[in-house]
Amino acid sequence: MNKQLILKNRPMGMADADTWALETNEVPEPKEGEILIQHHYISLDPAMRGWMNDRKSYIPPVQIGEVMRAGSIGKVIKANNHPQYKEGDCLTGWGGVQQYVVTNGDNWYQVDPNLAPMTTYIGTLGMPGMTGYFGILRVGKIKEGDIVLVSGAAGAVGSVVGQIAKIKGCRVIGIAGGKKKCDYIVEELGFDAAIDYKSEDINDALKRECPKGLDVYFDNVGGEILDAALARLRLNARIVICGAISQYNNNKEKEAVKGPSNYLSLLVNRASMQGMVILDYAKDYGKAAQEMGMWMVQGKLKSKEDVYEGIENFNETYQRLFTGDKLGKLVLKVIEE
Amino acid sequence: MNKQLILKNRPMGMADADTWALETNEVPEPKEGEILIQHHYISLDPAMRGWMNDRKSYIPPVQIGEVMRAGSIGKVIKANNHPQYKEGDCLTGWGGVQQYVVTNGDNWYQVDPNLAPMTTYIGTLGMPGMTGYFGILRVGKIKEGDIVLVSGAAGAVGSVVGQIAKIKGCRVIGIAGGKKKCDYIVEELGFDAAIDYKSEDINDALKRECPKGLDVYFDNVGGEILDAALARLRLNARIVICGAISQYNNNKEKEAVKGPSNYLSLLVNRASMQGMVILDYAKDYGKAAQEMGMWMVQGKLKSKEDVYEGIENFNETYQRLFTGDKLGKLVLKVIEE
Repeated sequence: MNKQLILKNRPMGMADADTWALETNEVPEPKEGEILIQHHYISLDPAMRGWMNDRKSYIPPVQIGEVMRAGSIGKVIKANNHPQYKEGDCLTGWGGVQQYVVTNGDNWYQVDPNLAPMTTYIGTLGMPGMTGYFGILRVGKIKEGDIVLVSGAAGAVGSVVGQIAKIKGCRVIGIAGGKKKCDYIVEELGFDAAIDYKSEDINDALKRECPKGLDVYFDNVGGEILDAALARLRLNARIVICGAISQYNNNKEKEAVKGPSNYLSLLVNRASMQGMVILDYAKDYGKAAQEMGMWMVQGKLKSKEDVYEGIENFNETYQRLFTGDKLGKLVLKVIEE
Repeated sequence: MNKQLILKNRPMGMADADTWALETNEVPEPKEGEILIQHHYISLDPAMRGWMNDRKSYIPPVQIGEVMRAGSIGKVIKANNHPQYKEGDCLTGWGGVQQYVVTNGDNWYQVDPNLAPMTTYIGTLGMPGMTGYFGILRVGKIKEGDIVLVSGAAGAVGSVVGQIAKIKGCRVIGIAGGKKKCDYIVEELGFDAAIDYKSEDINDALKRECPKGLDVYFDNVGGEILDAALARLRLNARIVICGAISQYNNNKEKEAVKGPSNYLSLLVNRASMQGMVILDYAKDYGKAAQEMGMWMVQGKLKSKEDVYEGIENFNETYQRLFTGDKLGKLVLKVIEE
């Protein structure tokens, strides 16, 4: 049987147990030219919150009654005359929060689970890693000597951003919540400094860690931290708008998104703020994965996944994205052994 | 005698009569290598409000007791062995709100008052015109067919932005306050459409005039209009942050600057928001003035100055920048005939 997580109600504010329903249905049969994939792992990402709003965005909203959208990785267990994939192939794509999926293979990528753990292919070598890679290189346009700040620094995207900035010769400051994450990014990932937004005043901490200001701020969180970063921009600084996790659970009825009051710092400093969506870089994923794979082999790029088990525990695990109670890429194991 | 407007008190919110003091002092003598300029006209610009705040910005604040900073134009009436300028030369620079100024000539530019009126050299052929020119071309990066929105569209900068966008083959919508200004930009300047923010709901009007969204928004005003424009961005749109006149008279004690709540539209639309300061383009002013002069001769670029008289009337005239009670570039004639 195929356990599937269905979007039942559109959340107002935080999603909760009532947002989804777990259904058990027949495992579907692949038609001619299709494959059946058994999911091993599901990727949990802050962007999921946005996909549940009934609003025009960079991707259509998940509809009520549909399987919740998610990145995923699994193995082909049945191929019905598929031109490219065969049983046993390991594929990653947008399989959704369910245990089995049938597809014609479009927009799925084959990976080699002997070179890296499957969880890494939906983390550092998957969408979050790609987001960090293209975001900091193509949008942030970092160069040697830049002072780079990243929020959500211990997370799936932020940890890649900071490590790549270090590889490129930048000074890197990470913002994370709690001592454990701050220690992790400095001691394990090699960031130059960490700011614990849960225990420090962010403005004071930025003054201390970036006395000369910032060339690049990679924003995963929005809110007060974005404003604090704006206040410390150097001339021609770049802000990469990748996400705004602090604002995702606001909603127009209750509480509007907080816009950055300090945005006129862009004018004073001739700085820019640019948004990005990883889907735009699809044609270069291969090159990026190759380069990041090389850095991983060389020990310059580390990956950490925080793995929870059981599709039944999806809601509980999802909450960790927003409480921050996790370390590294949040992954749910959905295969039952 | 030299009448000089001195910054007496830093304003909280709107500047008023109490902000400045008019002093009458001796006309200064040019020393060896210096010139004495008699001002004919002073430029009044919204940026003046920012220069009065005691805060780090792109230019140092005017200090209490100093002559108020302003762009100006006048003629050399005495030259003391100046290597470049002689009596009768017409120069424009940052002479301040006073009737006479002594300078060594650095950062002053000679212009020919036979080719254009002196007021135009501090308007369309001066800083506001340059701001529009470099802002829309270099930061806005307009190309043929773009849908371009500009606020403050009847003003010194906005009117140049819109006309240049028309010259480059864009569809241009201007936002201005009142029927007179809206008629002016459409009928005299050739904009495709106008939105009167004083009598229309800005969101509804944008839906009507830009049903396909916006490629470029040139922002002179900030506030609600910036948010409305963000809500209508197309993919890869560019927002030029040139000013925020709606927010200049806010102050931290009373009312914070309103940040753009819709800034996550930058993410969804892979759009950018970039600040600019005209001083950065100084080396290319000459080329820009030449091109704009050509457009003026061809009748493609029109210039309108709204001239008031008397340095005594500075405060009253300055208020018009913020009430909007003016049409075109606001100029104060300070020479007494």
